[in-house]
Amino acid sequence: MITFRKAVAADLPAIVAMLADDPLGATREDASLPLAQAYLDAFAAIDADPNQLLAVAVDGAEVVGTLQITFLAGLSRKGAVRGQIEAVRVAGGRRSDGIGRKMFEWAIEECRARGCVLVQLTTDKGRADAHRFYDGLGFTASHIGYKKTL
Amino acid sequence: MITFRKAVAADLPAIVAMLADDPLGATREDASLPLAQAYLDAFAAIDADPNQLLAVAVDGAEVVGTLQITFLAGLSRKGAVRGQIEAVRVAGGRRSDGIGRKMFEWAIEECRARGCVLVQLTTDKGRADAHRFYDGLGFTASHIGYKKTL
Repeated sequence: MITFRKAVAADLPAIVAMLADDPLGATREDASLPLAQAYLDAFAAIDADPNQLLAVAVDGAEVVGTLQITFLAGLSRKGAVRGQIEAVRVAGGRRSDGIGRKMFEWAIEECRARGCVLVQLTTDKGRADAHRFYDGLGFTASHIGYKKTL
Repeated sequence: MITFRKAVAADLPAIVAMLADDPLGATREDASLPLAQAYLDAFAAIDADPNQLLAVAVDGAEVVGTLQITFLAGLSRKGAVRGQIEAVRVAGGRRSDGIGRKMFEWAIEECRARGCVLVQLTTDKGRADAHRFYDGLGFTASHIGYKKTL
């Protein structure tokens, strides 16, 4: 029985471990304990922001998935609020259990409940599995995502 | 002499007019005056959020450009803050004056000043001019942007 809830500070080591357990994340993250202060600071900022929802999927006491939703106010589309989903991960060894799909269905309902008219996300061009996953969830690959490192 | 500043409520009609003066925006926006309450409500939400910066480019008293920056806290990349830029427009008739480039350079500096390690944006696959513009600004088209209407 998988359930979903807002993340708490005690979930952080499991979340960062999932972010790091990924071909791209492995080069960018540091899951060693105690966690770097930058992760704790980022968690505090996210947790204090009413427009951010860092979520976890849990199976009993075990954290098995995570994603982050940002509720974005904007003028475009007649002042529409958008839900943006980032940092989606499912724990290694649990990746064929349908957890990702359930987690997304939950996240989309959270966006709907907050009045979002649109859910958006970007994914690296190289993540072919992710592309099939989002296509299957009814997302349209309508945009190009640009990034510039500062 | 083009300058850049945080938008104020009095800029709203000019901003919405720019959002509507665009092949995609024309079908989505309503620039008729008085503006629909949804635009005023969205402006109030953006204006009250310290992680949002709705900006205008002005030439004297005339609003000639707009964009919106969202400062996104996240755990990924060791707790990095990202700057996300959306709703970029330059006023019709001023589109070859280099305003877009100056506005972006200003926006990227705002992101740097807020400690962002990355600036990100998405643009519709059909906006070929925009793709050349972002390539020229040193952005990398590394991601696919998915959207799902609710």
